[in-house]
Amino acid sequence: MISALQAPVRHLFGPGPSPVHPRVYEAMRQPIVGHLDPFFFQVNEEIRGWLQECFGTKNEFTMVISGTGSAGMECAVTNFVEPGMKVGIFANGYFSDRLTEMAKRHGAVVARLEKPWGQTYTDAEAQAFIQAEKPKLVAYVQAETSTGCYTPGDGICNAAHDAGALVIADCVTSLGGMPVRVDEAGIDIAYSGTQKALGCPPGLAPVTCSPRAVEYLRARPTPSVSWYLDLKLLLDYYENAHRYHHTAPISMFYALRESLAIIASEGLEKRWARHEANHEAFVAGLAELGMGMLVSEGERLWTLNTPLIPAGVDDLKIRKHLMANHGIEIAGGLGPLAGRVFRIGTMGYGSSPENVALLLSALKEALAA
Amino acid sequence: MISALQAPVRHLFGPGPSPVHPRVYEAMRQPIVGHLDPFFFQVNEEIRGWLQECFGTKNEFTMVISGTGSAGMECAVTNFVEPGMKVGIFANGYFSDRLTEMAKRHGAVVARLEKPWGQTYTDAEAQAFIQAEKPKLVAYVQAETSTGCYTPGDGICNAAHDAGALVIADCVTSLGGMPVRVDEAGIDIAYSGTQKALGCPPGLAPVTCSPRAVEYLRARPTPSVSWYLDLKLLLDYYENAHRYHHTAPISMFYALRESLAIIASEGLEKRWARHEANHEAFVAGLAELGMGMLVSEGERLWTLNTPLIPAGVDDLKIRKHLMANHGIEIAGGLGPLAGRVFRIGTMGYGSSPENVALLLSALKEALAA
Repeated sequence: MISALQAPVRHLFGPGPSPVHPRVYEAMRQPIVGHLDPFFFQVNEEIRGWLQECFGTKNEFTMVISGTGSAGMECAVTNFVEPGMKVGIFANGYFSDRLTEMAKRHGAVVARLEKPWGQTYTDAEAQAFIQAEKPKLVAYVQAETSTGCYTPGDGICNAAHDAGALVIADCVTSLGGMPVRVDEAGIDIAYSGTQKALGCPPGLAPVTCSPRAVEYLRARPTPSVSWYLDLKLLLDYYENAHRYHHTAPISMFYALRESLAIIASEGLEKRWARHEANHEAFVAGLAELGMGMLVSEGERLWTLNTPLIPAGVDDLKIRKHLMANHGIEIAGGLGPLAGRVFRIGTMGYGSSPENVALLLSALKEALAA
Repeated sequence: MISALQAPVRHLFGPGPSPVHPRVYEAMRQPIVGHLDPFFFQVNEEIRGWLQECFGTKNEFTMVISGTGSAGMECAVTNFVEPGMKVGIFANGYFSDRLTEMAKRHGAVVARLEKPWGQTYTDAEAQAFIQAEKPKLVAYVQAETSTGCYTPGDGICNAAHDAGALVIADCVTSLGGMPVRVDEAGIDIAYSGTQKALGCPPGLAPVTCSPRAVEYLRARPTPSVSWYLDLKLLLDYYENAHRYHHTAPISMFYALRESLAIIASEGLEKRWARHEANHEAFVAGLAELGMGMLVSEGERLWTLNTPLIPAGVDDLKIRKHLMANHGIEIAGGLGPLAGRVFRIGTMGYGSSPENVALLLSALKEALAA
């Protein structure tokens, strides 16, 4: 008899996955039902309602994709990019590069507005770019997991709509931890993942589409290249007809339902305030350790912090030390930020004064070691 | 406080998801680690080794896709179909229709060899079709979940290789419950799902590629349209480089590891024999209830049974009765088999003499009600 899996306990303070509430683990142990069982659709309706609140939207077309956050991104691209289409991308981090790559694979002609990683855009910059390029689709990253930068996107959405374009926003690291404001900002297609500020294990990607996006989808002459991520087929499955599409990952839906029930019980605004307060406390503590931040004040994510690594400090040595001595996972920078920043998550169940204290004391010890 | 999820207990005897062993549920409750944590890769290596055995292959290129069985199908299509490519499809059920749809969305020119649902192909038929159509890629469904028919595929693979074509086989409902024989049959790309005879909840898709398929992939001039399912990028993540691709659904990997550990503990051959014996006993019991089988003897899946519904019996009424009175889920037929067959799974943890007895007594009661 091969023995049962015994996973080690880690303190997950990287850019995700984030720590998971015990209630969520319990939910995953619940017995599965079939993917056409009325109980499953009941769970799914609860999820959809709570997701609307987290996204800040009244969009009926709000649902969950059976893949991780990256599948959410691919879902947005495959449903809204057609070959030859001009796509404008606000390129200020790793995930806008990934959007570029996916759009190109779908035959898009991509125009990019480059910014140094960690910076965001003024409304005037957004407007000038969109007016000059006249894209049919625009994409930006609201919560850039590679830089810790938040882009509200109102100016981008306004300029895009004036030009008759739809807008995709990557909200992977904001959903559940800070305001996403889909309706207020004017985002047409937003996607996220479960393993960040929602506090659920990775495995699903929430997606929402505005009525304007749905209209485009209904009128689109060709189907999306992806059948698995075809939003029209998914809607037929999850809504009225309940027409079989794929076998949804039931246990992950249970987990997401439970995460969202915890969020609804806490209250979204209280949850956002908790994230903000713990982020602020962490940034203040980092300053005491002599560490500044990559991103300017007011443009920072509350969920993911990117302190600058002090001169002479070895990125990898610190991270290995934290894992070996404290069981703490944090991440390093990607691309141009490799060796220049740490990426430290304070999100979901993990955003607490106790964890901020733990992180700061462990970092202090590691820097002195 | 919103109360915790309370799922009902169902007897899952449909075409999947199948019942889950308590050990697998326990594994899903284990604390998650990061998607770049050495422990995760260790779990993944265990999974890959055990999957090779279940597939009956020495293929190093054996791994898991972060989506359900349908994502496995789309992975096969997006990596091996190029626009304008001639694809030959053995069309004898719902899932070969889905393969057709996916191949067309990827720009393939599809030729189909049609057969009535529930029937399979002789070697001569396969050879004649492939010689006449000269496809560059051939796809067939080894275990047709819509009909209960098993296609070994040796003749298909031989003819395809003689014509210089690669072969995709859908093994969703065979893997873990009966021999898949990837190397012996000569299958180049096989995919499956976790929620059938592997006895795991839905959420992952095992995939394996022959050296011949890998060679094609390495030489392919354009990337696959799908970035999320790009096998070359996935291999860079799961193998040596461990280059970040997406955030793997850790809890589902735990569940799959545990299912495969249970299979390895039982022994594959004993497991297959168990499936065969329980299937045979079920078929014999169905005959006593006056129910014949859609599929000819010797061509039947051991995992999924498709008894013909007797004249005058109302498909939906029986299924509703079984769920309402016994908590038993079985499925009806799809497409041309709607109202003509039931689809009843005896697979994974669910394949037992006790369950066969339970199914037969409940069916008897329902038919008399």
